[in-house]
Amino acid sequence: MRRILIVNGPNLNLLGKREPEVYGTDSLDDINDRLIQCAEDLKLQVEFFQSNSEGAIIDFLHKEAGQSHGLIINPGAFTHYSIAIRDAIVGIDIEAIEVHLSNIYSREDFRHKSVIAPVCRGHIVGFGAEGYFMALAHFAETKKED
Amino acid sequence: MRRILIVNGPNLNLLGKREPEVYGTDSLDDINDRLIQCAEDLKLQVEFFQSNSEGAIIDFLHKEAGQSHGLIINPGAFTHYSIAIRDAIVGIDIEAIEVHLSNIYSREDFRHKSVIAPVCRGHIVGFGAEGYFMALAHFAETKKED
Amino acid sequence: MRRILIVNGPNLNLLGKREPEVYGTDSLDDINDRLIQCAEDLKLQVEFFQSNSEGAIIDFLHKEAGQSHGLIINPGAFTHYSIAIRDAIVGIDIEAIEVHLSNIYSREDFRHKSVIAPVCRGHIVGFGAEGYFMALAHFAETKKED
Amino acid sequence: MRRILIVNGPNLNLLGKREPEVYGTDSLDDINDRLIQCAEDLKLQVEFFQSNSEGAIIDFLHKEAGQSHGLIINPGAFTHYSIAIRDAIVGIDIEAIEVHLSNIYSREDFRHKSVIAPVCRGHIVGFGAEGYFMALAHFAETKKED
Amino acid sequence: MRRILIVNGPNLNLLGKREPEVYGTDSLDDINDRLIQCAEDLKLQVEFFQSNSEGAIIDFLHKEAGQSHGLIINPGAFTHYSIAIRDAIVGIDIEAIEVHLSNIYSREDFRHKSVIAPVCRGHIVGFGAEGYFMALAHFAETKKED
Amino acid sequence: MRRILIVNGPNLNLLGKREPEVYGTDSLDDINDRLIQCAEDLKLQVEFFQSNSEGAIIDFLHKEAGQSHGLIINPGAFTHYSIAIRDAIVGIDIEAIEVHLSNIYSREDFRHKSVIAPVCRGHIVGFGAEGYFMALAHFAETKKED
Amino acid sequence: MRRILIVNGPNLNLLGKREPEVYGTDSLDDINDRLIQCAEDLKLQVEFFQSNSEGAIIDFLHKEAGQSHGLIINPGAFTHYSIAIRDAIVGIDIEAIEVHLSNIYSREDFRHKSVIAPVCRGHIVGFGAEGYFMALAHFAETKKED
Amino acid sequence: MRRILIVNGPNLNLLGKREPEVYGTDSLDDINDRLIQCAEDLKLQVEFFQSNSEGAIIDFLHKEAGQSHGLIINPGAFTHYSIAIRDAIVGIDIEAIEVHLSNIYSREDFRHKSVIAPVCRGHIVGFGAEGYFMALAHFAETKKED
Amino acid sequence: MRRILIVNGPNLNLLGKREPEVYGTDSLDDINDRLIQCAEDLKLQVEFFQSNSEGAIIDFLHKEAGQSHGLIINPGAFTHYSIAIRDAIVGIDIEAIEVHLSNIYSREDFRHKSVIAPVCRGHIVGFGAEGYFMALAHFAETKKED
Amino acid sequence: MRRILIVNGPNLNLLGKREPEVYGTDSLDDINDRLIQCAEDLKLQVEFFQSNSEGAIIDFLHKEAGQSHGLIINPGAFTHYSIAIRDAIVGIDIEAIEVHLSNIYSREDFRHKSVIAPVCRGHIVGFGAEGYFMALAHFAETKKED
Amino acid sequence: MRRILIVNGPNLNLLGKREPEVYGTDSLDDINDRLIQCAEDLKLQVEFFQSNSEGAIIDFLHKEAGQSHGLIINPGAFTHYSIAIRDAIVGIDIEAIEVHLSNIYSREDFRHKSVIAPVCRGHIVGFGAEGYFMALAHFAETKKED
Amino acid sequence: MRRILIVNGPNLNLLGKREPEVYGTDSLDDINDRLIQCAEDLKLQVEFFQSNSEGAIIDFLHKEAGQSHGLIINPGAFTHYSIAIRDAIVGIDIEAIEVHLSNIYSREDFRHKSVIAPVCRGHIVGFGAEGYFMALAHFAETKKED
Repeated sequence: MRRILIVNGPNLNLLGKREPEVYGTDSLDDINDRLIQCAEDLKLQVEFFQSNSEGAIIDFLHKEAGQSHGLIINPGAFTHYSIAIRDAIVGIDIEAIEVHLSNIYSREDFRHKSVIAPVCRGHIVGFGAEGYFMALAHFAETKKED
Repeated sequence: MRRILIVNGPNLNLLGKREPEVYGTDSLDDINDRLIQCAEDLKLQVEFFQSNSEGAIIDFLHKEAGQSHGLIINPGAFTHYSIAIRDAIVGIDIEAIEVHLSNIYSREDFRHKSVIAPVCRGHIVGFGAEGYFMALAHFAETKKED
Repeated sequence: MRRILIVNGPNLNLLGKREPEVYGTDSLDDINDRLIQCAEDLKLQVEFFQSNSEGAIIDFLHKEAGQSHGLIINPGAFTHYSIAIRDAIVGIDIEAIEVHLSNIYSREDFRHKSVIAPVCRGHIVGFGAEGYFMALAHFAETKKED
Repeated sequence: MRRILIVNGPNLNLLGKREPEVYGTDSLDDINDRLIQCAEDLKLQVEFFQSNSEGAIIDFLHKEAGQSHGLIINPGAFTHYSIAIRDAIVGIDIEAIEVHLSNIYSREDFRHKSVIAPVCRGHIVGFGAEGYFMALAHFAETKKED
Repeated sequence: MRRILIVNGPNLNLLGKREPEVYGTDSLDDINDRLIQCAEDLKLQVEFFQSNSEGAIIDFLHKEAGQSHGLIINPGAFTHYSIAIRDAIVGIDIEAIEVHLSNIYSREDFRHKSVIAPVCRGHIVGFGAEGYFMALAHFAETKKED
Repeated sequence: MRRILIVNGPNLNLLGKREPEVYGTDSLDDINDRLIQCAEDLKLQVEFFQSNSEGAIIDFLHKEAGQSHGLIINPGAFTHYSIAIRDAIVGIDIEAIEVHLSNIYSREDFRHKSVIAPVCRGHIVGFGAEGYFMALAHFAETKKED
Repeated sequence: MRRILIVNGPNLNLLGKREPEVYGTDSLDDINDRLIQCAEDLKLQVEFFQSNSEGAIIDFLHKEAGQSHGLIINPGAFTHYSIAIRDAIVGIDIEAIEVHLSNIYSREDFRHKSVIAPVCRGHIVGFGAEGYFMALAHFAETKKED
Repeated sequence: MRRILIVNGPNLNLLGKREPEVYGTDSLDDINDRLIQCAEDLKLQVEFFQSNSEGAIIDFLHKEAGQSHGLIINPGAFTHYSIAIRDAIVGIDIEAIEVHLSNIYSREDFRHKSVIAPVCRGHIVGFGAEGYFMALAHFAETKKED
Repeated sequence: MRRILIVNGPNLNLLGKREPEVYGTDSLDDINDRLIQCAEDLKLQVEFFQSNSEGAIIDFLHKEAGQSHGLIINPGAFTHYSIAIRDAIVGIDIEAIEVHLSNIYSREDFRHKSVIAPVCRGHIVGFGAEGYFMALAHFAETKKED
Repeated sequence: MRRILIVNGPNLNLLGKREPEVYGTDSLDDINDRLIQCAEDLKLQVEFFQSNSEGAIIDFLHKEAGQSHGLIINPGAFTHYSIAIRDAIVGIDIEAIEVHLSNIYSREDFRHKSVIAPVCRGHIVGFGAEGYFMALAHFAETKKED
Repeated sequence: MRRILIVNGPNLNLLGKREPEVYGTDSLDDINDRLIQCAEDLKLQVEFFQSNSEGAIIDFLHKEAGQSHGLIINPGAFTHYSIAIRDAIVGIDIEAIEVHLSNIYSREDFRHKSVIAPVCRGHIVGFGAEGYFMALAHFAETKKED
Repeated sequence: MRRILIVNGPNLNLLGKREPEVYGTDSLDDINDRLIQCAEDLKLQVEFFQSNSEGAIIDFLHKEAGQSHGLIINPGAFTHYSIAIRDAIVGIDIEAIEVHLSNIYSREDFRHKSVIAPVCRGHIVGFGAEGYFMALAHFAETKKED
């Protein structure tokens, strides 16, 4: 069974508890529960990781990359400056999809630039939690093509 | 039945015929045929439009907006400068999803900026023709929530 | 009788129907009707043109320039990038007045720059439909000076 | 009777005496005399002020704002850097119209940016002294709507 | 016989009629007549197209590319922003030469940048109508090398 | 007794009367009365000055610097461009504290840059009138250290 | 009793030991001891945290935010790029005060920009350790107003 | 006898009293006394003016221009932003020489740009008070040529 | 017989020996031999000069300008920064044509800017050695017009 | 014996395993083994540290600085934004050498800027693992000079 | 007797022969003759050098610096980019005065920046050949002060 | 025996004589003598060249490249603008190492950019004369690998 990493960056652990008008009332655990369900339906295995630390995310990517087939990553604020995570994605040579809950292009100017996007296969922005499911479905889809 | 507009901008009529190594071998008609199929499954009605003319795209949006529930748009090169299409999307007040076949963020610098993205609900980049299907599925999804 | 061209760019055909809180409830036809009235009082002849296509606007300018004495133009979104319309105005050698309904200087940064303004005699911004009347009155005024 | 402030910034007291090929041969007093006439016809009262000092203009605005209904301001060179006058206009909460005699958009680059424009209702550029009359007429017009 | 497309962008239909001090007194038809003559001498077939519409130019390029061997294009004002025409030239995979009548590098700053130049084989600037002949001669030259 | 200058720049005389939702309902006189009280408690003498004129502020600084031990300055809009006031502060060689009522860093971009800050000892932003008291307390504090 | 978080970013643990000519000879512990004293006087409870790790600071903010009433933060070098800490402050919805020991505006250009300042209530710069006390006094002050 | 205006901008009245290591120990009066002497030798009449107010400098220029033959101006900090003084110099149509005591090009970046220089005949920088004498000698020199 | 200068800048002496995949296998001497032949056919006299030194090129231009009627210059890397060569071309008042072998607009960003182009009559880019022949033919052409 | 710290930033633990065509086939451990050998020969003691976490690197520098005489640092992606590591190097007052395996100046634009370089004694770029040895040799060299 | 170097950069050997409307009709030799005369009167010895080659100017400066007391340099176009000449002036540690015949601040934008000015004592711009005499007089003046 | 070119750019002939506090007291000849010694030990042959002329450096590179195996170049001020030297290095296809004596990254902003670095194999900055030895050792090292 294909194994997909689902990584969330800083402050995404606050999901559902804070600013629900922006990010909805579902917690990250709620979303992850639904993602497990969905993954099962799609015959995929998912591995979750959330951290507020850039280094921890890189460590996780290094450790898990070998036995995984895809990466869904919402880098949160790291989107805009973590060249280290960018380099990690290139270094582990995995197909990655960048997901953002809100439309970063209708927010502050400094959120319009992703240093992660150029090294991902795809980029899904603005669909809330649905973005993770679209990305997961993509990995199920490409699996079928193998 | 919900009606979704699927608009493709300049040069997308060349799909499949040219640069297949970048854009695949499917023509726009092939993709549209599969989208009709998919739309039927999702109980959605789709209306296609492709033009190399900014004005024709705006005219189409004005004419069709009233009786439609969503817009999937791949603005092609207009992505980067057509403030007129941006204003049209705002003016007709429709939920829009911007789709790009290739990952515009790993191409030339001038392709990293979308003037359309800030007025769309979502932005799907880099999945080839699959992006249209993801967008269509989104409209089916939100319909269920109604 | 002096003949004045009144040209409106993309999305201005939506006037009155959409975003009335920004642009008022009058349609472009309502405004034009009042402009005809006003022109008659001022002993001017007016010729209207609206298009969402840059090329159609340029064609109109080329065709009508010979037998006209002035141009009132609201280029809409073309204001910010249509060097082609700018060149057309220079090419036909007509006295032009640029009109904007809303105050473009209190909107997004990209709306602060007009590529059309440098080749116009005057620039009237922020008075809603009244701007067209001010421009028309100007042509009546200068006619008197002839 | 509505009272309208007409404020001219630095070097506008030189009007008519210097650079007549740019600004015409009318002095500011000549223009003001005609504006008094015009205001009478329009049932408006006008109060003139010209100063080469940013502080004096702000003092005038503060003192007169309470008993006035509108402001016509040609900020001259202050247009391009006087955030203090900008803040004064916001602070006194008056409907303001910015007027420029010449077309600032066809002059040096540094004249293309107005720090005043974003806080005005409207902006009239390039009509010579006629710009003041257009602005005055606007206040007469809106008075009728009251 | 090799077939060469000769495409002129916006406002070039005004050639000879307007601003003769800049562009000379020959009309586009005069130039085209001489180009036909010249093409005959060079054993080339030429196909002319002029439009003020970006979309029409792209449509023409798509339609004609298959049976043509080269493109001479004076994109006029589109030079500076039409990424859509740039993409069309890449899409149809034709050897293109960009021609400008005037020296765009001694005019306004915004005319110094061509978005078309990077996808052309060559770029001929400042020779007036002679530029088209130089480009045509180039295609005759390379034909000989085949 | 140490003598502290408290200087307020343009439009700060409007405090309390205008935009109370931003700046509170206290007038500058109300604040100054409380500052006198506070200064007495801290065994400091305060000298107030407000002007809408850059030149008058510089004149005041030159005149008072000799017999004063500190400067609290809210330069208002001059913050962003008055290099002349900056030079005056350096020229009179006084310990200066820059105070802003509102958080200039969450307002328009042009308010993020202070040309005064680099020549001050400290910079207190966003605490409303309380900022003046914090600055005053600082001077009392450093006095104790003498 | 109100609880105030006092967070110091990278390298602030070196205080007193290194570069005493810039930052004084007090260690962070010395300052904290005095802050405890001061807090007691002001009837406030303080909770200290210093870390050289962006992630650890965010974790601390998330954990402590619920039972705290204010945040005093000297983000050190993170001031200039940690959008993740900025987002954390917004996410936990706490009144925050940014403190810098040195005047960042008279140092290198890259230190003039704070990505944290726009989401804080206030910003105190250049007073050395005294800045923490000013911030603490502010929280005592506002407590009184409750 | 030719009459030359010698205008000094903000903070130049501090000369000799402050920062003598930068600007020398001569006061402005000392320099002016020597300039009177020198002018007499050169058969020139000099008229001095110093002000910290932009408006006062412009007023002086307007008043004196008619009966004067040249202007020596050290605009101090106004050098970098007073477009109003620039416009005044153009408006009164006088031959002007800009003088700076220190070498503005070896100081802060913002001092490298003079908005006054483009409208002066000459620009003398870095010679201390000697710069005024060089400028005066120039006017004596050109007088001889009359 | 008209005399045409043909000047090649730095590294063009390496032609044919190095990077033949970019610049072809012809040496500069091979090209020059063919240019002599061609010039003879066109009744033109050609004078060649190649140097890796900016100063030597300027010296050559000064020396030869008087007895020459045109200049064909490939400034090599000097294209991008030699304002001295630009000034030399203006100073000797000769009709100049700038030639580049490769398409500088599809290479590194710093090669897109020519400081020479604005002072030339024409600019021919991307045709390899053929560019020199096109330029030469131009001079033959204009000779006929004399 | 002099003690030298050798610090490697994010993703450098992947050396040898990934992208061997860029970084060679040696693992970081292989390189470190050789560095130990080399250090012994040079009578130096080396202490290795690699981390993907900015905070951990700073902690290491703080802890080890006291008993160490030099620092060799390859900051990886932190090169481009970690002002915190820059400040740590300044704060611990150690002679530092920055090493990069690849030539960062021939890669993406954002890799051309090092925020670390200005606070290092030297900067060695592009020699692969050899760079560490060059740096180590430097410390041996300077030791001899003591 | 003090020895002063007078160095002229590229194209200044054309003086008097070309563009006399800009630079006057005096040749460089004419000016130099007058400078010798003037130097004699001032008891100074002058050494002239003109070259179109940056390297030759640097060689001259290196060779002559030891036995000279001052440098008057008009770097011509090298003003704007020759960091090598800037470094030479610093390296030979001589008091230098930069002279420009025309007002470089009223010409093209790229002429507004001098890389030489920051390392000179003074900068004299816009006085034609008179600028050399002003500079020479300065050296005579400072000699008296010795 | 491998032959290595050692090229020094403008002003490096001043080494040891001037600014010894920055560059040390060794002359370039002293350094070269030591380099010859070192080269002998390393079984390398070295060929020195220093010039203040860009053209002479390029000529030297062209002439010597054929019989040489490596280049050590300290381009001095040419580092920042000599695209011609950059092109020469590419053109002669030699392995090059760029050396700078001082740390260019802790000096003026304009020294942070090397146009030479992208075409070199390595870049050694800030080690004084030692940098040349490190570069030489590198060539000895790679020789062993042959």
